[in-house]
Amino acid sequence: MESHYMEWPSWFSRALEMYRGLAGVFRGLSHVYSCGMGGSGAASDYLAELLWYTGSSVRLTVVKDLAPREKPSSEYGLVLSSYSGNTVETLACGERLAKQASSILAVTSGGRLLELARSRGWSIAEVPQGLLPRVSFPWMLGALISSFSEELNLNLEALSSRTSRIDVAEARSKAGVVAEFLYDHRIATIASCGPTTPLAVRLKNELAENSKMPSRLEVYPESSHNDIVALETARGLYGGVFLTPSSGECMAVMRAASQIYAEYGVPYLELVVGVDGGVEDLAIEYLYWTIVAGLSSVELARRRGLDPASTRPIERYKRIVSI
Amino acid sequence: MESHYMEWPSWFSRALEMYRGLAGVFRGLSHVYSCGMGGSGAASDYLAELLWYTGSSVRLTVVKDLAPREKPSSEYGLVLSSYSGNTVETLACGERLAKQASSILAVTSGGRLLELARSRGWSIAEVPQGLLPRVSFPWMLGALISSFSEELNLNLEALSSRTSRIDVAEARSKAGVVAEFLYDHRIATIASCGPTTPLAVRLKNELAENSKMPSRLEVYPESSHNDIVALETARGLYGGVFLTPSSGECMAVMRAASQIYAEYGVPYLELVVGVDGGVEDLAIEYLYWTIVAGLSSVELARRRGLDPASTRPIERYKRIVSI
Repeated sequence: MESHYMEWPSWFSRALEMYRGLAGVFRGLSHVYSCGMGGSGAASDYLAELLWYTGSSVRLTVVKDLAPREKPSSEYGLVLSSYSGNTVETLACGERLAKQASSILAVTSGGRLLELARSRGWSIAEVPQGLLPRVSFPWMLGALISSFSEELNLNLEALSSRTSRIDVAEARSKAGVVAEFLYDHRIATIASCGPTTPLAVRLKNELAENSKMPSRLEVYPESSHNDIVALETARGLYGGVFLTPSSGECMAVMRAASQIYAEYGVPYLELVVGVDGGVEDLAIEYLYWTIVAGLSSVELARRRGLDPASTRPIERYKRIVSI
Repeated sequence: MESHYMEWPSWFSRALEMYRGLAGVFRGLSHVYSCGMGGSGAASDYLAELLWYTGSSVRLTVVKDLAPREKPSSEYGLVLSSYSGNTVETLACGERLAKQASSILAVTSGGRLLELARSRGWSIAEVPQGLLPRVSFPWMLGALISSFSEELNLNLEALSSRTSRIDVAEARSKAGVVAEFLYDHRIATIASCGPTTPLAVRLKNELAENSKMPSRLEVYPESSHNDIVALETARGLYGGVFLTPSSGECMAVMRAASQIYAEYGVPYLELVVGVDGGVEDLAIEYLYWTIVAGLSSVELARRRGLDPASTRPIERYKRIVSI
């Protein structure tokens, strides 16, 4: 798996090239639903933040569920992301939303979703087969960013050229530091604020799937009104990974929270995520830190003698659930 | 604090009477933002689910942050909830959204928010003073349900009359079972799906503030695609509290997940939340289980020799943060 994560910058660059024809697929729509679960839903979290960051008036509602928890708006686009193409929740979400959708994009490597998309004439971002869904991330992120490049006011070529600046050796070395820190704990607390929250969710999920390590999220400033009180009993229980934005109110909020971690004797590791550039810069930061998250979780699994690729409880769940 | 939680049914009933004049305050609006942090933001989570449950076309965006993470829609209403009236994040959120809002409701016991509301002619739900913010929940929920009673297609008198059916002695006995279960663990995993998710968030926050106990959330079906893998290393680390809806796809999903907990030797306690009646019934279930959450967390604090009322890390945070 490690070698796959290290290839992400080139995969992402190729994805931007491969899917550039999807630009404008949601032109004129102010609301888009995006249904996808687990590794196939991750890229949408990032896209929603990128749309907000760039000041777009397009609202993306990320649905990691069988249906959105609101009455669908009167006019909307729809993204259905499922790596295998056979995720039951995503197909159910599509079933409920496709009929009224003005434009539909399927992001998949095959299965039922690809069949449906072909037979109904939906737009398709076909991603390469043979990967673990969570490892297909750069293809999915590339497909979404290409599809929304107009709404993001983003230059696909400029973005693609910046992928070469990603230093995967440096990412690997940072991942070693994260794995070393987490190795001392049975559970991680991942703290985020604003633009780093998609990264926090992704790190939680990578640690669960690859390292079999449970995490809890603290999303600031909300967590400073409740979760932070648990520091009183947290010593020796968990360590914190702080995904701190490089500027703004969120930086101040997270620095205050980490100071209180220190005061209560709860160790934490701070990772500073750059949020000062343009939308292309933020996309590159997202890709970089998602590589770090992936490599950290694989390294931690290796240290613990666990197989990062196996996810037995998920397979078991799929066998016994009936929805 | 225990005696306060036991009074909630009568407080809620009085709140519905006291705030009935707010019905229609957002009439004609299809989108409302609700800004509120911690205990003052909880009631909005429930309201959003009630609106969805009843099929309302009004969308409530709950903002537990300094601002919504989307460009505001062109026409919207605004709820600002802050028990003290001085929560900096909520005031900042109001600052950013009030100017363009078509209708504004302040839910507060005083402070700067009450001053602002009076001077600018906003609608006001003044809640009783002298409570801990998290304990003022039935006043805030009552204020919101009254304000949205038309959109919820809800009969305030029928709802008020049902509060007398809430058996607080039974709630106290259930709370004892929850506290007994959690006493064996340093950390709780709270699992939910669909309509029980606001309850899960609330239980997490009550355990943090009252019991100083950290929790992690698993929101199904999404968690069956990642978090569930952590069961492989969870034995002896956490216990699960399953907030299982009484019917529907979510019941099937959570029963499958809890079966896998059992297979991995991770203990869990299932609490079944009724989701089969009308919107009034669901509101009563929400109140009942929120009482159970409050009483459980106080009982757990008592057993551990901790003061449920004190929340020192929050006070510390407020002193050192500058935003």
